[in-house]
Amino acid sequence: MNYKMMGRFIGKILIVEAVFLVPAMLISLWEREFTAVAAFMWSLGAIMAVSGLLLLLSRGSQNKFYAKEGLVCVGMSWLFMSLLGCLPFCISGVIPNYVDAFFEIVSGFTTTGASILPQVEGLPKGILYWRSFSHWLGGMGVLVFLLAISSMGGSDNGYTMHLLRAESPGPNVGKLVPKMRKTAGILYLIYILLTILDIVFLLLGGMSLFEAVCTAFGTVGTGGFGIRNDSMASYSPYIQNVCTIFMMLCGVNFTCFYLLLIRQFKAVFRDEELKLYLGIMAGSILLITLNLKGFYDTLGETLRHAAFQVATIMTTTGFATTDYELWPGFSKAILLCLMIIGASAGSTGGGFKCGRALLVIKSLFRSVRKITHPQKVQVVRVNGQPIGEKVLQNTNAYLAAYAIMTVGSFLLISVDGFSITTNFSAVLACFNNIGPGFDAVGPTCNYAAYSMFSKLVLSLDMLAGRLEIFPVLVMFSRTTWKHR
Amino acid sequence: MNYKMMGRFIGKILIVEAVFLVPAMLISLWEREFTAVAAFMWSLGAIMAVSGLLLLLSRGSQNKFYAKEGLVCVGMSWLFMSLLGCLPFCISGVIPNYVDAFFEIVSGFTTTGASILPQVEGLPKGILYWRSFSHWLGGMGVLVFLLAISSMGGSDNGYTMHLLRAESPGPNVGKLVPKMRKTAGILYLIYILLTILDIVFLLLGGMSLFEAVCTAFGTVGTGGFGIRNDSMASYSPYIQNVCTIFMMLCGVNFTCFYLLLIRQFKAVFRDEELKLYLGIMAGSILLITLNLKGFYDTLGETLRHAAFQVATIMTTTGFATTDYELWPGFSKAILLCLMIIGASAGSTGGGFKCGRALLVIKSLFRSVRKITHPQKVQVVRVNGQPIGEKVLQNTNAYLAAYAIMTVGSFLLISVDGFSITTNFSAVLACFNNIGPGFDAVGPTCNYAAYSMFSKLVLSLDMLAGRLEIFPVLVMFSRTTWKHR
Repeated sequence: MNYKMMGRFIGKILIVEAVFLVPAMLISLWEREFTAVAAFMWSLGAIMAVSGLLLLLSRGSQNKFYAKEGLVCVGMSWLFMSLLGCLPFCISGVIPNYVDAFFEIVSGFTTTGASILPQVEGLPKGILYWRSFSHWLGGMGVLVFLLAISSMGGSDNGYTMHLLRAESPGPNVGKLVPKMRKTAGILYLIYILLTILDIVFLLLGGMSLFEAVCTAFGTVGTGGFGIRNDSMASYSPYIQNVCTIFMMLCGVNFTCFYLLLIRQFKAVFRDEELKLYLGIMAGSILLITLNLKGFYDTLGETLRHAAFQVATIMTTTGFATTDYELWPGFSKAILLCLMIIGASAGSTGGGFKCGRALLVIKSLFRSVRKITHPQKVQVVRVNGQPIGEKVLQNTNAYLAAYAIMTVGSFLLISVDGFSITTNFSAVLACFNNIGPGFDAVGPTCNYAAYSMFSKLVLSLDMLAGRLEIFPVLVMFSRTTWKHR
Repeated sequence: MNYKMMGRFIGKILIVEAVFLVPAMLISLWEREFTAVAAFMWSLGAIMAVSGLLLLLSRGSQNKFYAKEGLVCVGMSWLFMSLLGCLPFCISGVIPNYVDAFFEIVSGFTTTGASILPQVEGLPKGILYWRSFSHWLGGMGVLVFLLAISSMGGSDNGYTMHLLRAESPGPNVGKLVPKMRKTAGILYLIYILLTILDIVFLLLGGMSLFEAVCTAFGTVGTGGFGIRNDSMASYSPYIQNVCTIFMMLCGVNFTCFYLLLIRQFKAVFRDEELKLYLGIMAGSILLITLNLKGFYDTLGETLRHAAFQVATIMTTTGFATTDYELWPGFSKAILLCLMIIGASAGSTGGGFKCGRALLVIKSLFRSVRKITHPQKVQVVRVNGQPIGEKVLQNTNAYLAAYAIMTVGSFLLISVDGFSITTNFSAVLACFNNIGPGFDAVGPTCNYAAYSMFSKLVLSLDMLAGRLEIFPVLVMFSRTTWKHR
């Protein structure tokens, strides 16, 4: 293990976190929330102290860097960011319990949006801003940000590649352009553009600037923390529809936007993952709208709620305009399945990812074809390109890890004695970075009732889900830390 | 496709079915249940007619036989057996609706034990016998029986091997002895011995012969159809404990019994799957007993119910001595996880199978090791033997098929509007051949309320689960039936 390099890396990430804490503090200062200002100052001090210590200890680090170190680095940096990023909640007294505050900020950074707060209206605005901003920071990955602004190890491409691979959502990111730094820059540019567009559309709907910015952070980061107690229910249909559209957009693989920018329209229209993503979305909205017949007054209203809820669950955002807990069983079952599938690879959304589902299904078809035509060589193709056996193996390993972690977490949090639906959907909602689940963790409820132990398990699920499991597995693997 | 060979094979299987229908008819005759006798006679006639027609049409078949034909053959024979085996229920008026009767007999042959009958006491004894006997016939596989008594294609080992592979539960059956026929004979011998032992122990507990035989069929076949309305709740603790022990025994890989018979004790004690199976079972009983503190009067009673329910769910039998629906959430969560894992490979039980879980977990560990030590060649070993990449690939493909079928079936039966827990556990209980689930399909309830469509979906799940998915996938695959 290259501890010095890791220390230097985490130290740098913490500086970024500290810098982004300043706007939140300024908002609190402007709003004269002096307790919050003090909390932000103490937190800033703590972050800078840890960062300084890490940078001091890691002077003179070597540049040798392996894949496992990339994964551990990313896992550790998210852990450190969360351990320190929750301090403002804790010190300001908004969430007095440290484990609760940790859960809340992990939920923020991982763009989950699962909350332990029963109500958010009336909280200091600086705190609300920091809570929503954590989504935006986590959405594209703070690491990608770091790559976009710094050279990070200079010419050593292996270093940045290992890091980017470890953090980027989905199996096939980072193939946009050969240069990692340029890739990171393009991704962030698209991300910022989408955010600005969303803010403008929300302002046009009559939102205040503060509300628009916070809502856009939650939407574009596919997070789900809102600033009203009823999430998005009390906003106008226009604003709800704007959110629906931007959630849908941010569940698309960002590579598609890049291809649109460079006018490669054909490649976008042919993209199988995009087709699957849009197809599932359209099908789900249609089926739910049919199933909800008579539930709302007009067809338009039904369609609006169906589209919003499908978008919010499938892109793993987690806002809500209505209590879908009251919907009929079939609609709820569709939402539960969407929870598992999730958004596209290379988007800000979480879940198993459409691209991976596509690979799993295609590789299953291949297995059947292998039985029926054993002599033929069977190749799995996506977008016309043959997929290597190693990618298929990794995808299947991912499915195994996904299944084992879901079942294991479900068992662990069941100790608290909630219903099967509550526990199962809580695990799915956290692991897939969605936020609300069903029953006692439904859209009108929160996670406060779970025990400290369960909250830690769910926090770990959120981290594992956001980092696509393997960094967390490697971080907790004995062989990683063993000296040879 | 070698249609003639398939026809001949299914014809033979149906003759076996007809022969086994005779004892049920004789019981009804003895008990003077004349409606049932008539029903059995009509059914016999129909089965013989279909069988005769198939054998007539398939005269002069060739011996060429491929893997896909083995799978289709097995799938089709189970389908034919069920389509005709449900006639006694239907004609006797016990289950007037054909789809219901089909569901019930599929549940029997696949050793699921999910019933649509609200009560069974008072039904004709011949019908009850046939219902329980279907478990016994399905438990070891009617095909294995056929192999044990006939040469089935003589020296052509490929033929029998493809068939046995398609029907045998678990990834590693058929390696006992090189000769398939001898293997089948040994398996059936062990199976019959266990059944006789079980009957003797039940008779010692004061059961009538009829009750003992039917209960043993349900136990040793890990089926779960009982002959009392409250399943096993009103039996004495002695009988409940006998059932617990025999269920546990029948969830063990039968290879272990063979190894015990030939005095290879070391190999048995070293068997990793056996260790995992017994370990999970012991751990679950311990945790549930602790969790149930104060639920029953004495520790002994708690332990008895815990052990019985763990055994019945993990071996996928489906009897019940108590309404576990009333247990606390953690105990229910453990049972739900046991539903998924299931019994050992090469046992009469269903589920994902311990052996497969072992492979999935080991191959996941391997993936993590590959990241931390990319230079080393990493081999997965079970019982000290290296496992080939193809077996690992197949296991992962199985997991994928398992996950997709579970989610898909859940979505389909959700149309009926039951709760998420009901639908999810119904799919798990049918797909893993268990029987009772939770909520509206809990141990005191039944499947009658589901629509015809859902019952057909669940029937297909039962078949797919019992035949380990791939025969059913191949049977419904377009490429199988395409002419070249």
